[in-house]
Amino acid sequence: MRAALDAAAQAGLAGEVPVGAVVVQGGRIIATGANAPRRLHDPTAHAEIQAIRAASQVLGRDRLEDCDLWVTLEPCAMCAGAIAHARIARLYYAATDPKGGAVEHGPRFFGQPTCHHRPEIYAGMGEGEAASLLRDFFAARR
Amino acid sequence: MRAALDAAAQAGLAGEVPVGAVVVQGGRIIATGANAPRRLHDPTAHAEIQAIRAASQVLGRDRLEDCDLWVTLEPCAMCAGAIAHARIARLYYAATDPKGGAVEHGPRFFGQPTCHHRPEIYAGMGEGEAASLLRDFFAARR
Repeated sequence: MRAALDAAAQAGLAGEVPVGAVVVQGGRIIATGANAPRRLHDPTAHAEIQAIRAASQVLGRDRLEDCDLWVTLEPCAMCAGAIAHARIARLYYAATDPKGGAVEHGPRFFGQPTCHHRPEIYAGMGEGEAASLLRDFFAARR
Repeated sequence: MRAALDAAAQAGLAGEVPVGAVVVQGGRIIATGANAPRRLHDPTAHAEIQAIRAASQVLGRDRLEDCDLWVTLEPCAMCAGAIAHARIARLYYAATDPKGGAVEHGPRFFGQPTCHHRPEIYAGMGEGEAASLLRDFFAARR
């Protein structure tokens, strides 16, 4: 989660909502993603999508069933869907997101009967730092 | 929808589940997407994501509020989320997808109170051709 938090901080410095993610395989980080929709002109460029796409390129396949995803914020519906398509084994996230989150809020995607893959889910590690990155970012913009 | 169906047929010929999409701005197709997760080693490479990413690159921005998306199959949660993030104005889809669809099935994403953007939604145009492309594809694989 340390590396995901560092990626989040970098996103914030670049003027993007500070969210970061890493994909881990066998205890090793194989891909990092930082939220970058504005900078990349890509509405899909959330941290999770960036990390999953990069990891898939590294491994040369579209399924990451032997990989875990660590992300600093509860994934939205888009990212939860991508996590299921990628067959991520374990999902770790720091802060919850009552507004846009789709794991324990809103559509609760992984609990839907139509969800075809549900990772193991662990929440809360690094929550304080992840939430304060977001709080400070939005406070500075007001 | 004709162009989206053609992109779907091309995806099928390439061995991918046959789904195609186009982004239209002012009556003109500005981007086309064909489903390609296997070929591109990218679990996020659904037709809608491909078309939205390409359109965002064409326009140099991450919001497509003056654009419509035409796709041959009801979007999944990942793609529905991307459509909301991109602020697509109108969504047109052909066949419904009771298994993976997230518009009128499963999470019914655009009906969630936490959904921050809901496009106008029109379904059914080209449904017969879109569904038969999918049916023939899966029949040939059995």
